[in-house]
Amino acid sequence: MKVKLRNPDREVETSGNRKVRDILRELDLDPDTVLVIRDRELLMREDHVTEGDLVEIRPVISGGAIKCRRCGGAAVVEIRRHNAAFCRGCFLHHVREQVKRAIKAYAMFGPEDRVLVAVSGGKDSLGLWDVLLNLGYRVTGLYLGLGIGQYSHGSAEVARRFAEDRRATLLEVDLAQTYGFDVPTAGRRGSRSTCAVCGLSKRYVFNRAALEHGFDVVATGHNLDDEAATLLGNTLRWQTEYIARQFPVLPAAEGMVRKVKPLHRLSELETAAYAFLRRIDYVVEECPLVAGNTQLRYKGAMNGLEAGSPGTKAQFFLGYLDRGAPLFRSEERAKLRECERCGQPTTGRFCAFCRARAQILGERLGPPPADREVAVELSEEVLPAEIYGGAMP
Amino acid sequence: MKVKLRNPDREVETSGNRKVRDILRELDLDPDTVLVIRDRELLMREDHVTEGDLVEIRPVISGGAIKCRRCGGAAVVEIRRHNAAFCRGCFLHHVREQVKRAIKAYAMFGPEDRVLVAVSGGKDSLGLWDVLLNLGYRVTGLYLGLGIGQYSHGSAEVARRFAEDRRATLLEVDLAQTYGFDVPTAGRRGSRSTCAVCGLSKRYVFNRAALEHGFDVVATGHNLDDEAATLLGNTLRWQTEYIARQFPVLPAAEGMVRKVKPLHRLSELETAAYAFLRRIDYVVEECPLVAGNTQLRYKGAMNGLEAGSPGTKAQFFLGYLDRGAPLFRSEERAKLRECERCGQPTTGRFCAFCRARAQILGERLGPPPADREVAVELSEEVLPAEIYGGAMP
Repeated sequence: MKVKLRNPDREVETSGNRKVRDILRELDLDPDTVLVIRDRELLMREDHVTEGDLVEIRPVISGGAIKCRRCGGAAVVEIRRHNAAFCRGCFLHHVREQVKRAIKAYAMFGPEDRVLVAVSGGKDSLGLWDVLLNLGYRVTGLYLGLGIGQYSHGSAEVARRFAEDRRATLLEVDLAQTYGFDVPTAGRRGSRSTCAVCGLSKRYVFNRAALEHGFDVVATGHNLDDEAATLLGNTLRWQTEYIARQFPVLPAAEGMVRKVKPLHRLSELETAAYAFLRRIDYVVEECPLVAGNTQLRYKGAMNGLEAGSPGTKAQFFLGYLDRGAPLFRSEERAKLRECERCGQPTTGRFCAFCRARAQILGERLGPPPADREVAVELSEEVLPAEIYGGAMP
Repeated sequence: MKVKLRNPDREVETSGNRKVRDILRELDLDPDTVLVIRDRELLMREDHVTEGDLVEIRPVISGGAIKCRRCGGAAVVEIRRHNAAFCRGCFLHHVREQVKRAIKAYAMFGPEDRVLVAVSGGKDSLGLWDVLLNLGYRVTGLYLGLGIGQYSHGSAEVARRFAEDRRATLLEVDLAQTYGFDVPTAGRRGSRSTCAVCGLSKRYVFNRAALEHGFDVVATGHNLDDEAATLLGNTLRWQTEYIARQFPVLPAAEGMVRKVKPLHRLSELETAAYAFLRRIDYVVEECPLVAGNTQLRYKGAMNGLEAGSPGTKAQFFLGYLDRGAPLFRSEERAKLRECERCGQPTTGRFCAFCRARAQILGERLGPPPADREVAVELSEEVLPAEIYGGAMP
């Protein structure tokens, strides 16, 4: 197999059927700083490349032949959807401007607010923390220990070092110590998928910790790619209530602290390039439990469309905020009340976290609530009866 | 390269970098009767297969090992999203039931209505004409000559033979003879893409012919894949007005005959299998001008998602009709008035067809109307000024 490197222009031979991630490791390339392209299609880290494929590795951080749009100096980062390139300094400025613009446009928080950043140890959350510290906000990190073996140990280490280097405060919560289960256990027991119960636990713990420690707002590192993929998934199923709630700011409500996504205007490549250029040591590995995750399929579909037409992701998500969201306002969730177990807000008797936890730990919560969530798989939703509108012919 | 045929289970060796369409031709396989799969991804006819790839060709029309869900006989067609298989007779029944269901659900037309089917010579339009004749409706075909060389000649021949065999009436309009331009010329001159001006011409001519010949309704062969791809494109851009108008029936209005899509519940593989099993001789080739068409990119993205989760297309489009469409009702187009040139309905002074035609023929229509449509390319829509909300930093 030939691997063509665009800049510098050299070809590398490898053999056999291999994963993109392994080829990049061998070439000592950071997967977050390059586009890997075969036949005008972007490849993901888990994709396979076989004998006979010609693969182009196109650096996001290029050699400097292109000029910075802002200062005219040698550019190091190219952003196709903006048809622009920037030098290091102007790129960092660009990222900060995008974050400032997002904070201002949605009145996310002000200089007096106490902001809690949800820290995973990846490029997005550490990059966000870094930008917010740099802009002078009052920011504290919160790391949630999920108990995913070496992956979690590494993430915690990285988060601690980041905080130490910057003399920032890092709070830590361990899911197993505090709530009696870890994510791998939750994935094996209970009815939810691993990713579903992990997401649920994060939302719950971050909200609860923010309330208990008196924070005004929780900021998460969701980037444009995350938001576009989530919106695609919600739209493919026309989950109008979820679509209505997918917004860069969710206002505070009874028992719910305000949630904000200051990176929603920046692509995954931009946040990766930011972390790289700021020399942030972050966890590059994907979570080992994420394989086959539907979110990754949606990202794959969006990447395919973006490759054919740069700007598709931004147009989809920012276009939704501009023209789509107003149409979904009426679909927002019903009134919240207090969970009878933990007091956190919920639409039913017990919140989803307490229900999941009881299921995982084999406890009883009392009679099952009437509105129990059912995990509906995509392929189950078109049932025979639905095809024929009732009885079979 | 090895090509694995699933049923019967034999492998075929070929070599070099080749198109899927050429491999299928060599194996004497009709591309509309098989799924071509590489690494759990569906390949399109124009995709390339290279040395070292293992490609599975999975017949839609299988060998009969699986039982028909309706009668228990040997099945010949498998439909993954329904997790079902049918014998020939029950599959034809299934297709007719889906068409009957669509006609009834949207009150498309009744037994007394005069229906004009837009005939291209492909599987969908001929299949639709066949089903409607079979169900006893009063149907006439209309073939529009687009002037695309051998492709148009072949399509016209196929449509004429189909009509002759069934003693059905086929009307014909030649774009060049009647309106002074053909589609290849229109694509070279004027500001619209070839596919855009072709679609515009079809909508215009079919509507005008239906009015002039006293038809009650125009039926087109758009299938589920067409509708899902169009909806994806419209949604990615949040073109709310287009989304609002994408419905299986568009009611008649001043100067606009009713438009219906009776195949919208059937996938492309189902309409292809129907045409094949009914031994309809149809044009298998794609239009030679369609290469790079964005619609094909959207179909590719939907096929990728469908492969990972069968039922995605149906859930997306039928879910839109059910839960999405009501939210877009308010976005429908403004009032129509008469085109000052041809009298057909339009929102401006001159209709889009007359504007395109004048541009192609180098004629003047009078002062340019204020609401002139501008062809906006996807990549042009995120402009530098838009990134920074005005002046550059």
